[in-house]
Amino acid sequence: MGPDPAVAAVRLAVRRALAGLPPGAMTLVACSGGADSLALAAALAFEAPRSRRPAGGVTVDHGLQDGSAERAERMVRTMASLGLDPAGSVAVTVGTEGGPENAARVARYEALDQAARRLRAGAVFLGHTRDDQAETVLLGLARGSGARSLAGMPSSFVRSRDHYEQCEVRYERPLLELDRATTRRACEALGLEPWDDPHNDDPSYTRVRVRQEALPALERTLGPGVAEALARTARLLRDDADALDDLAVEALGRARGPEEDGLSVDVLGGLNRAVRTRVLRTAAIEAGSPAGTLAAVHVDDVDRLVTGWRGQRHVDLPGGIRAFRRYGRLLFGRE
Amino acid sequence: MGPDPAVAAVRLAVRRALAGLPPGAMTLVACSGGADSLALAAALAFEAPRSRRPAGGVTVDHGLQDGSAERAERMVRTMASLGLDPAGSVAVTVGTEGGPENAARVARYEALDQAARRLRAGAVFLGHTRDDQAETVLLGLARGSGARSLAGMPSSFVRSRDHYEQCEVRYERPLLELDRATTRRACEALGLEPWDDPHNDDPSYTRVRVRQEALPALERTLGPGVAEALARTARLLRDDADALDDLAVEALGRARGPEEDGLSVDVLGGLNRAVRTRVLRTAAIEAGSPAGTLAAVHVDDVDRLVTGWRGQRHVDLPGGIRAFRRYGRLLFGRE
Repeated sequence: MGPDPAVAAVRLAVRRALAGLPPGAMTLVACSGGADSLALAAALAFEAPRSRRPAGGVTVDHGLQDGSAERAERMVRTMASLGLDPAGSVAVTVGTEGGPENAARVARYEALDQAARRLRAGAVFLGHTRDDQAETVLLGLARGSGARSLAGMPSSFVRSRDHYEQCEVRYERPLLELDRATTRRACEALGLEPWDDPHNDDPSYTRVRVRQEALPALERTLGPGVAEALARTARLLRDDADALDDLAVEALGRARGPEEDGLSVDVLGGLNRAVRTRVLRTAAIEAGSPAGTLAAVHVDDVDRLVTGWRGQRHVDLPGGIRAFRRYGRLLFGRE
Repeated sequence: MGPDPAVAAVRLAVRRALAGLPPGAMTLVACSGGADSLALAAALAFEAPRSRRPAGGVTVDHGLQDGSAERAERMVRTMASLGLDPAGSVAVTVGTEGGPENAARVARYEALDQAARRLRAGAVFLGHTRDDQAETVLLGLARGSGARSLAGMPSSFVRSRDHYEQCEVRYERPLLELDRATTRRACEALGLEPWDDPHNDDPSYTRVRVRQEALPALERTLGPGVAEALARTARLLRDDADALDDLAVEALGRARGPEEDGLSVDVLGGLNRAVRTRVLRTAAIEAGSPAGTLAAVHVDDVDRLVTGWRGQRHVDLPGGIRAFRRYGRLLFGRE
C-alpha cells in the first residue's frame, strides 16, 4: 500500500522541485508550523535522502505572540524528529515599517537569508500553496495596475544582498500548484499536528478577509475552481509581464538613441501601446517620479503627448516631475 | 445653472465619443430602456445636433417576455420625444444556440447590424458601463485563460459580415468609464423612467450573481473602487494581449520560415514564454485542435517539446491532433 494520496502529492511536488536544483547543496525548509510548511517539511525530509541531498529546517520566532519561543522550540524538535538536520530556530525583532505584515515579512526573509548563507543552502523551500496564490492575485486586483499586480508570487526567486560577495539565496515554492486542503490532509495522514496561527483568522488583515469572504463568494457565483483559475491567471500574466518588460527595456534604449536628452517621439509612436506605456512609466520613474504614486492615469496623460499631440504644454507627474515635448523629443524634468 | 453633474458626465462621454467619429454620418444608439442606454440615448440626442450630426435610436424587441412589443413601442416614442430621428424598433427571433444569453446577444447584434447598414450609420453606441465591464472581467477570471479572458469589452469594435460588400458596422461604448449609479442619476435628473429588466435580477444568470454577490463581497474585503480597478485592469490587459498577439503572429511566420512543414525549434526556443505559448496555441488551432477545448495545460505540454526536450514521443491535443518533434522541427498532425 502506498502513502496517502495527499502525502504522495506533496512528495511529488517536492521531488520535482529538488530535481531542478544542483546536486549536493543543502535544501532548507522554512517552517512556521502551519499545515502548509509542516507538510512541506515532512515531504522534504522524506525525499531529500532518496536523491542523496542534505536537508535542514529553520523556523523563525517573530516574538509577536506569547509562547512563541516555546513554540519555536517544539517546531525544532518536530523538524529534527522528521529527520531534518540541522533543525534550528532564529529569533528576530520585527520593526514597524510598512505595516505589521510587511515588517514581519522583511524580518523573516532577512533571517532566512542569513540561515541559508550560513549553511550554504542551495535553496530555501517555502510552503505557499495555490490558495495563497489566489489570495495574492485578488489582493493585486484591488491595485488595478495591470499584469504585474496580478502575477502573484513566483514559483522561484533569488534574493541577493551583495553581488560582490555572491550572497544570492534561491527560494522555491514547490506547493504552488497544490491546495491548502491537501497539505492539511497530508499532515493528518502523517499524524503531524499543525499549529494554526491566530493571525490567520484575524479579519483585521485584508488577506484574511479575502480568504474568508471574497474567495468563497467568488466560488459560489463562478463555481468551484476559482482558486485554480486565479493561480493559472497569475502564471500566465507573469509570463506576459516578463515579456513586455523585456521589450520595454529594449524599446527604451532605442527611443533614447545616441542623443543626450529625452526619448524620440517617432520611436515611441511606432511601439504598441502596451510596450509604450511601460517605456513611459520607466522613463518617468528614472526621472524621479515615485513608482508607488505614479498611476496609470498619469502615464496615459504622458502617452497623449506622443499619440494625441495638439500642442499640450506639459504633464505634471507625482514627485514634481514634468513631462513635455520639444523638437520631436519627449523630455522629463523638474517643475 | 448647468445640468445635473450626472447628466453632464454622460454628455461629456458622448461628446468625446462623437469627436472620434468621421463627421456627417448618422450615429445610432441601441436602447433597451434600462438606465444605462436611456441616459446614453438622451445624451446623444442632446449632443449630436450640437456637432451637426444626425442621430437615431433603435430598440430591439427580443420577444422573450410578455408585453415586449408594447414596451418597444413606448421606447420608440421616448426616443422620438428625445429628438432621435429616426427612432424605431426591430423584432427578432431568439434561437437557443449557446444558451439563452448568447442566443439573445447574437440576435440583437444581427438586428443592430442590419439597422446600421440600412441607415448607413457611422457608429452604433452601446450603453455598457464600468460596472458591466467589472462583471465581464470577473466572468473571465473564472476561465483563467490569461490576459485575453480578463480584457473585458473593448471600448470600440467593428463587426463585418462580408469584406467584399464593405458591410462593416462600428460599435462604440462611450460609457465604459462611468458607473451605473451615474446613468441612473442622469435619468432621474432628466425625468426619464428607466425600465428594469427582470432578467437583471434573476440569480440563475451567472452575471447577476456576480453583480449581486461577488462584486459586493470584493468591495467589502478590498475596499471601494474594486469595479474601477477591474475596469482599469481590463484596459491594461487588453493592450498587453493585443501587443503579444501581434508579436506571436510575427514570430509564427519566422518559426515557419521557408520550409514546408512545422516550426523551427531553434526559433521557438529563442522566444520568451509569453510569445512562444501564443505561437504554439495558434499553430495547434490551425492544425485543427478546437480553440474552446485547447487549454493552457495542453500548450504547456507542447512547450516542453521545445524547452524540456528529453526524447518525448508526442503530445496528444484535443480534436485528435498530435504534436511531435522531428529533426529540429515541431510538427502537428492527425493521430
